[in-house]
Amino acid sequence: MGGVSIKAGIVGGAGYTGGELLRLLLNHPQVEVAFVHSNSQAGKPVYEVHSDLLGDTDLYFTDTLQQEVDVLFLCVGHGAANKLLTEQQLKPGMKVIDLSQDFRWNESLNKEVVTASNRDFIYGLPELQREKVKSAQNIANPGCFATAIQLALLPLAQHNLILSEVHVSGITGSTGAGQSLSATSHYSWRSGNTSNYKVLNHQHLHEIRRTLQGLQEKVLPGINFVPYRGPFTRGILCTSYTHFDLSLEEVQELYSTYYSSHPFVHFSSSTPDLKQVVNTNKCILHLQKEGDYLVITSIIDNLLKGASGQAVQNMNLLFGMEETSGLKLKATSF
Amino acid sequence: MGGVSIKAGIVGGAGYTGGELLRLLLNHPQVEVAFVHSNSQAGKPVYEVHSDLLGDTDLYFTDTLQQEVDVLFLCVGHGAANKLLTEQQLKPGMKVIDLSQDFRWNESLNKEVVTASNRDFIYGLPELQREKVKSAQNIANPGCFATAIQLALLPLAQHNLILSEVHVSGITGSTGAGQSLSATSHYSWRSGNTSNYKVLNHQHLHEIRRTLQGLQEKVLPGINFVPYRGPFTRGILCTSYTHFDLSLEEVQELYSTYYSSHPFVHFSSSTPDLKQVVNTNKCILHLQKEGDYLVITSIIDNLLKGASGQAVQNMNLLFGMEETSGLKLKATSF
Amino acid sequence: MGGVSIKAGIVGGAGYTGGELLRLLLNHPQVEVAFVHSNSQAGKPVYEVHSDLLGDTDLYFTDTLQQEVDVLFLCVGHGAANKLLTEQQLKPGMKVIDLSQDFRWNESLNKEVVTASNRDFIYGLPELQREKVKSAQNIANPGCFATAIQLALLPLAQHNLILSEVHVSGITGSTGAGQSLSATSHYSWRSGNTSNYKVLNHQHLHEIRRTLQGLQEKVLPGINFVPYRGPFTRGILCTSYTHFDLSLEEVQELYSTYYSSHPFVHFSSSTPDLKQVVNTNKCILHLQKEGDYLVITSIIDNLLKGASGQAVQNMNLLFGMEETSGLKLKATSF
Amino acid sequence: MGGVSIKAGIVGGAGYTGGELLRLLLNHPQVEVAFVHSNSQAGKPVYEVHSDLLGDTDLYFTDTLQQEVDVLFLCVGHGAANKLLTEQQLKPGMKVIDLSQDFRWNESLNKEVVTASNRDFIYGLPELQREKVKSAQNIANPGCFATAIQLALLPLAQHNLILSEVHVSGITGSTGAGQSLSATSHYSWRSGNTSNYKVLNHQHLHEIRRTLQGLQEKVLPGINFVPYRGPFTRGILCTSYTHFDLSLEEVQELYSTYYSSHPFVHFSSSTPDLKQVVNTNKCILHLQKEGDYLVITSIIDNLLKGASGQAVQNMNLLFGMEETSGLKLKATSF
Repeated sequence: MGGVSIKAGIVGGAGYTGGELLRLLLNHPQVEVAFVHSNSQAGKPVYEVHSDLLGDTDLYFTDTLQQEVDVLFLCVGHGAANKLLTEQQLKPGMKVIDLSQDFRWNESLNKEVVTASNRDFIYGLPELQREKVKSAQNIANPGCFATAIQLALLPLAQHNLILSEVHVSGITGSTGAGQSLSATSHYSWRSGNTSNYKVLNHQHLHEIRRTLQGLQEKVLPGINFVPYRGPFTRGILCTSYTHFDLSLEEVQELYSTYYSSHPFVHFSSSTPDLKQVVNTNKCILHLQKEGDYLVITSIIDNLLKGASGQAVQNMNLLFGMEETSGLKLKATSF
Repeated sequence: MGGVSIKAGIVGGAGYTGGELLRLLLNHPQVEVAFVHSNSQAGKPVYEVHSDLLGDTDLYFTDTLQQEVDVLFLCVGHGAANKLLTEQQLKPGMKVIDLSQDFRWNESLNKEVVTASNRDFIYGLPELQREKVKSAQNIANPGCFATAIQLALLPLAQHNLILSEVHVSGITGSTGAGQSLSATSHYSWRSGNTSNYKVLNHQHLHEIRRTLQGLQEKVLPGINFVPYRGPFTRGILCTSYTHFDLSLEEVQELYSTYYSSHPFVHFSSSTPDLKQVVNTNKCILHLQKEGDYLVITSIIDNLLKGASGQAVQNMNLLFGMEETSGLKLKATSF
Repeated sequence: MGGVSIKAGIVGGAGYTGGELLRLLLNHPQVEVAFVHSNSQAGKPVYEVHSDLLGDTDLYFTDTLQQEVDVLFLCVGHGAANKLLTEQQLKPGMKVIDLSQDFRWNESLNKEVVTASNRDFIYGLPELQREKVKSAQNIANPGCFATAIQLALLPLAQHNLILSEVHVSGITGSTGAGQSLSATSHYSWRSGNTSNYKVLNHQHLHEIRRTLQGLQEKVLPGINFVPYRGPFTRGILCTSYTHFDLSLEEVQELYSTYYSSHPFVHFSSSTPDLKQVVNTNKCILHLQKEGDYLVITSIIDNLLKGASGQAVQNMNLLFGMEETSGLKLKATSF
Repeated sequence: MGGVSIKAGIVGGAGYTGGELLRLLLNHPQVEVAFVHSNSQAGKPVYEVHSDLLGDTDLYFTDTLQQEVDVLFLCVGHGAANKLLTEQQLKPGMKVIDLSQDFRWNESLNKEVVTASNRDFIYGLPELQREKVKSAQNIANPGCFATAIQLALLPLAQHNLILSEVHVSGITGSTGAGQSLSATSHYSWRSGNTSNYKVLNHQHLHEIRRTLQGLQEKVLPGINFVPYRGPFTRGILCTSYTHFDLSLEEVQELYSTYYSSHPFVHFSSSTPDLKQVVNTNKCILHLQKEGDYLVITSIIDNLLKGASGQAVQNMNLLFGMEETSGLKLKATSF
């Protein structure tokens, strides 16, 4: 392991996921950040935009996409990743990890691999398909809510146990909406406030259904999802429930077996709270039975396990490094 | 109206609902606060405990329960209201409005009136049974989540339209947990945090089911409720959905007809956010259809329409005053 | 009093101070809102912009400035008020209350009256010069920090007791920065964050110095002010200290005499906290002595006593109404 | 460096600073946590109390103080550290780092070394006296506000440039008040709220004055400090100003020279905001001149550079490890 060392480039480095990726990669023992691309900030020191990096790096944003990197992270908006790959010829051996939704699923939902611009993209949820990730060339990094909900349901789907509709509600922090200024990201509005949005039609349901139906042989029932905007900055907490015949002990056994080799998934025997995972790459799961309902609570940091942390986890797997390398993060806790 | 003037007493005036009631009654044009009872704070000026009332009142907390009032508000804990009425002989003509859950329902759930200590308690949800409230002697004031959820579902139950399970998620502010210090009300814990609790077994489901089954002739299906602790102080936002055959226009018609004479219920054509109602006695409802699901969003201020504001609304009705008297409140808005 | 009834118009009604003024005037017993002007929102219902007013008003924004009002409130940006009065001929008898800083002081700082467009503006701090306000035609409504700091220092200046530099620090909520979207009003930035700004050169020092030097015969020493952005929406808390020879009892006597007839200023014997005044028109003062320093803490709601509430207070005085009319507001408290 | 490895014990491991220390030491490449002592939580797994450590450690709290450690961290309350050292015989070679205020200064304020229980304590501010720290046996870890204020003023004192009173205001997060439940740490109170406390008489002024007077030959003028409770959990931001004759360029030169070899102090050319340092061990300084005042803004994370991070920094120095070892932390940023 000591010998491995790779060069990484970031496109769209001035946004939230780009900045978070930088915070991780600058401390990663086996990675050198070769360049950080940004059209809007080219020429400025990185710490002028990500001001917490003052003292940590002398990098400047560039508007030139260098080819001499082993892996390229795309932190651009939905649609822009596809455009970039179409317009720009990348060095063939370069691996790509895309954080947008452009290559997570296709319209038919029935293919595991999304091909675009002559590149085949593997859906990068290591807890679903770590081996495929390891041998992939290109990764489509999952969505944040999609990660929290899939990790709550993967073992059920694997055992053909999603037999009736699943009801999910979830709350996300403001960083999920990115850096752009908007009415619902204005402090005076969002502080002490909450609202639902995209009720029962959130776009992440596509990738969730694709994954679960891919695992489960029986036809997947409806997944109903009510997302909320929470008055906090980081994190996602989801509660999912569905009818379930087995006992709590049986389901705990299924889950702990499923996740036994996955270093970022942990089980809490008591009700978890969001800040247990904020600023870490963990997912904490909690299982309970109420009547004939199985209730699963799942929490992640939307910018880490839900975005840039998972991207680094995928990078580690792509290059044969320790899955947790650079990801043993101190939680904020408070 | 000008001639009406009543005397009110408050028991348990040092807590959150007691304080909120005081804030309302001190500005109510037809009410004089005769006394504020508190065992723990007796002898202190009211503004030492409710420090925002500095300059508004010279009242002191007392540990003597005076009988010469027209209405007595019980703002004591669950269990303590029943105990007080059992141990203390109240003047027969005195009306009682109890904010605890002691008289909201009984075990059998099949009686509309809960009788305790020779007093019959009417469930004080004016939008359910305003006429019964007007002629009542004693009022059991509804719970906060119970108010938000019932107001979302009353028109459906009235028309026998709750035909399949209802799925509700809701977020509440910290004042819902009252004034007592606890791990989950500690600022360092709750700030930027969230968690669910009492998933699928919240105690307010009793009164909700009693009400809805009382209205609807067909057997009431399951009401599933996932409550969340939100990192804010005031307010409740609930999202409820259930299968529904009629069109959006038809359901809007049902709802607007049902609430046409109720001054505190309003409809928003766009997705509402919590702060539209904070520091007011309003309930704002929003209706939408997604596939064959009807989705109802309801928002209230948990301390006002969910507690002390509704208590004043009930008082207004009990004494033949304008239903909105003393309740035209300036929203905090931000 | 019952007979008085006036018509009011608002220019710039879509912003924060305009909305807050509306919330007050719609509940004011002696005022009718004749129109609400907004260039950007003309044609829309008021409640679409100020969504908490749903159910409270059927007014629409207009782009026509009607002349048939008794008082016109200018809630437009700094500079725009002056421009409006220069370009637009107002009915001579119409009174004007301007919430911008355009007419609060002039460059020389040595005139009490600022004249613009043939209108003489009186600085509308009732606790400084209530009688002048009563007989004024046009009011320049004070700034928010300026109000909090002046109310802390007026009695000292009146008694020639500001003899050495005054050191002030103060924290303001996000609504002080208005409705416009900016990096420092983005939720993800401001939540859990703080920073200072305009250290020792805040623009409100002009009006503060003009007022204090106008009261005090001796030359006014420096006023040093460090403002902070606080992670909350409403309110201002300031701490001021200066060398002071008299005893605490003597200064308390001076202050309570000075403010004895002013209904919105109250004294707290213990350290106050901001939420005692949020959503009210109050100013709470606290006095203490530490060594030979007098320390004065002052708190107001920046949108009420610091803006729209004070504007209504001035309106009440201009028209011979009760000073507190429409301003007995329920505090948010939490 | 690779060869160094030490064993550490923590007393008072269930509190905030103890937990934060654990979060650091568990990831420190050269430290093994031998035991975590807690009287109140003995027998429980560490992750039951510090729930974000779920999956990170299998340690249990113990009520036995083991002697076989190289360094013992005391994270107990003020007074309790002194009591422990008096009552308990520690192995002579064991180094002690105390996070309480018990050994930071003595009444006379004129000794650099505080001796207690036959142990000499060195004040552990590496930016003041790194060489003394390196050769120390026992460290008194500085207070949080004391760290932020001293780092703002050290270069001035070193050059005899504190010639007139210093005026400091500062805002701290709720974790500064620790884990105990209290009225001012209740979420419903503190959310959206602020207040000052201990105005001009904060206890950290003792250690600040001792340090500055120890550096500066001329008599130290008054240090006036106004602390605020901020509605956030982590961090301290201080603004200090004093009369100053030199130019901005000259003072920048002094400061950058002073801190050139100190890895955790950084300079921002623009106004910093608190979240630049939250969850890091950094101190960011900003210098400006306004008239003849020098204004210094300093920010730290109160639990890291202001407590447990600085304790680890001191440990690194005590044992000849890299000063930054285990302290390259990912900022929370949002």
